[in-house]
Amino acid sequence: MNKVILLNKRPEGKPTESDFKFVEENMPTLKEGEVLLKTHYVSVDPYLRGRMTEAKSYIPPFELHKPIQSGMIAEVIESKNSDFAVGDFISGMLEWKKFQTNTGKSLTKVDDKGVALSAYLGILGMTGLTAYLGLIEIGKPKQGETIVVSGAAGAVGSAVGQIGKILGCKVIGIAGTDEKVDMLKSKFGFDEAINYKTTKDMQKAIKNAAPNGVDIYFDNVGGEISDAVLANINRFGRVAVCGAISLYNATEIPVGPRVQPILIKNSVLMQGFIVGNYAEKFPEAIKQLGEWLKVGKLDYSETITEGFDHIPSAFIGLFEGKNNGKMVVKV
Amino acid sequence: MNKVILLNKRPEGKPTESDFKFVEENMPTLKEGEVLLKTHYVSVDPYLRGRMTEAKSYIPPFELHKPIQSGMIAEVIESKNSDFAVGDFISGMLEWKKFQTNTGKSLTKVDDKGVALSAYLGILGMTGLTAYLGLIEIGKPKQGETIVVSGAAGAVGSAVGQIGKILGCKVIGIAGTDEKVDMLKSKFGFDEAINYKTTKDMQKAIKNAAPNGVDIYFDNVGGEISDAVLANINRFGRVAVCGAISLYNATEIPVGPRVQPILIKNSVLMQGFIVGNYAEKFPEAIKQLGEWLKVGKLDYSETITEGFDHIPSAFIGLFEGKNNGKMVVKV
Repeated sequence: MNKVILLNKRPEGKPTESDFKFVEENMPTLKEGEVLLKTHYVSVDPYLRGRMTEAKSYIPPFELHKPIQSGMIAEVIESKNSDFAVGDFISGMLEWKKFQTNTGKSLTKVDDKGVALSAYLGILGMTGLTAYLGLIEIGKPKQGETIVVSGAAGAVGSAVGQIGKILGCKVIGIAGTDEKVDMLKSKFGFDEAINYKTTKDMQKAIKNAAPNGVDIYFDNVGGEISDAVLANINRFGRVAVCGAISLYNATEIPVGPRVQPILIKNSVLMQGFIVGNYAEKFPEAIKQLGEWLKVGKLDYSETITEGFDHIPSAFIGLFEGKNNGKMVVKV
Repeated sequence: MNKVILLNKRPEGKPTESDFKFVEENMPTLKEGEVLLKTHYVSVDPYLRGRMTEAKSYIPPFELHKPIQSGMIAEVIESKNSDFAVGDFISGMLEWKKFQTNTGKSLTKVDDKGVALSAYLGILGMTGLTAYLGLIEIGKPKQGETIVVSGAAGAVGSAVGQIGKILGCKVIGIAGTDEKVDMLKSKFGFDEAINYKTTKDMQKAIKNAAPNGVDIYFDNVGGEISDAVLANINRFGRVAVCGAISLYNATEIPVGPRVQPILIKNSVLMQGFIVGNYAEKFPEAIKQLGEWLKVGKLDYSETITEGFDHIPSAFIGLFEGKNNGKMVVKV
């Protein structure tokens, strides 16, 4: 039998295990032109929380009682499609199933020569592209500028910081445990790192870490951390608004200091984005990221949870800061 | 004797007459290289409120017990500077004085052929440039798009709406009286206009006026009006954050719904600006505005208060919506 994870109900606030349902179904049978895929790695990402809510957004919501989808790495174990051979590994947006068929139209072949397969869900996949393109296209970093990254120990944040360093910027990371703060400095080369959970006055801590002010803020979290960073933003500052994980589980509209006066006072840009906006730049970006990875200029962390049954708990763990870098489930 | 208006104390909340002080001083005497100027028109603008507060901003605060400065039109009545002749009219950033001397370095000659002198404080001056450059450089309007303008009956807002129409957009204005709403449609050609003071559900009113959503929001006011517009913003929407007059007199940090989730959901750009950011484009912009004005494509309103003694009350009136279009004092 095949195993599938459905959206059982729409989460209210933080997702719980009961929002998901495991069901068994017959093994899929292959039609002409299709491939049969065996799941190896499943990406769990904060943005999936948005699709679990029934609200208009940039991608349609997941349907109730249907399989959830995310980025996955799978192996072709049977093929009636001449573009794919048995043994090929592919990445694609797939359903949370142990086995599934696919027409192959939106699958990308990947290989594990010199790089772990899971990297295609992270540094060479959506999270690496999000970091690179958000920083380059919106942040437009110039040598010597100061970048602050929130959610810095996450998959996107740790890549943003390293790319900032490669480009000659001063990089300050914000994270939620001392271990993460240490890792930002020792493993990823951040100049400064701040533990927001143990810091009383974040605005002052950022000021101390960035005495010349903040030129670029790569925002993964929103909320009060962002208030503290924006209070230190420089004239002509750029804010890449990538995520707002601190707000995703809010059940009422979150309120906070209005940003407009700061934007006017300092001629600041705030640009919300999703990585898909820059799809035409993916090949160039992946090439650059791959080169940096190969020569050791770029490192990454991943938290790999084992077992298909642990996909929901790994996803829920994202909102508890349980991951260092990219959260992936190995099936 | 000469007459001068000083900043007497820094306003708390809405400015009052007692924040200003009238003093008399001896008539200035002219040095070599200087001109003696007689004030004709004084511009009063919301942004001056910011300079009355002792806070770091894009321009330094006014000093206590020193003359206030703003854009003015004056006549050269004596000259020891070969660049200026008696009888020349100039525009420049000058002090609130009936007479003053000036080196002429940052003065611009203006002439009243075919256009009222006061226009150089409005549609052909800072407010016209703010409207044109904010809309073009940040809004990047494309034919057929929908523009919402708040503070639409103001000097900047009414110009934004007309330029939007010239460029083939649908334009919706928000203002605070029925007279202003009528004027937006009859005089300035706005497609729709909404009186925010008599409209209970602004979010719905904007949705009705902009059934295809809002592509560009030119924001002069901030606050709850902006919340209602942002709730209707389209994917890839652009928000030119020009002013926040609803917040300028706040004595505590104003709070409201956080914008980050909307920015991410719809890949929205918000860019705060002041017109000086685009100084290199002033000549081109003034040329275009002048041409549109000449052929009757562009109209403007101004509220002219008479008398040097009424400069403070005219300024205070800005925060009471007493002006239609540019507020100018004729001395």
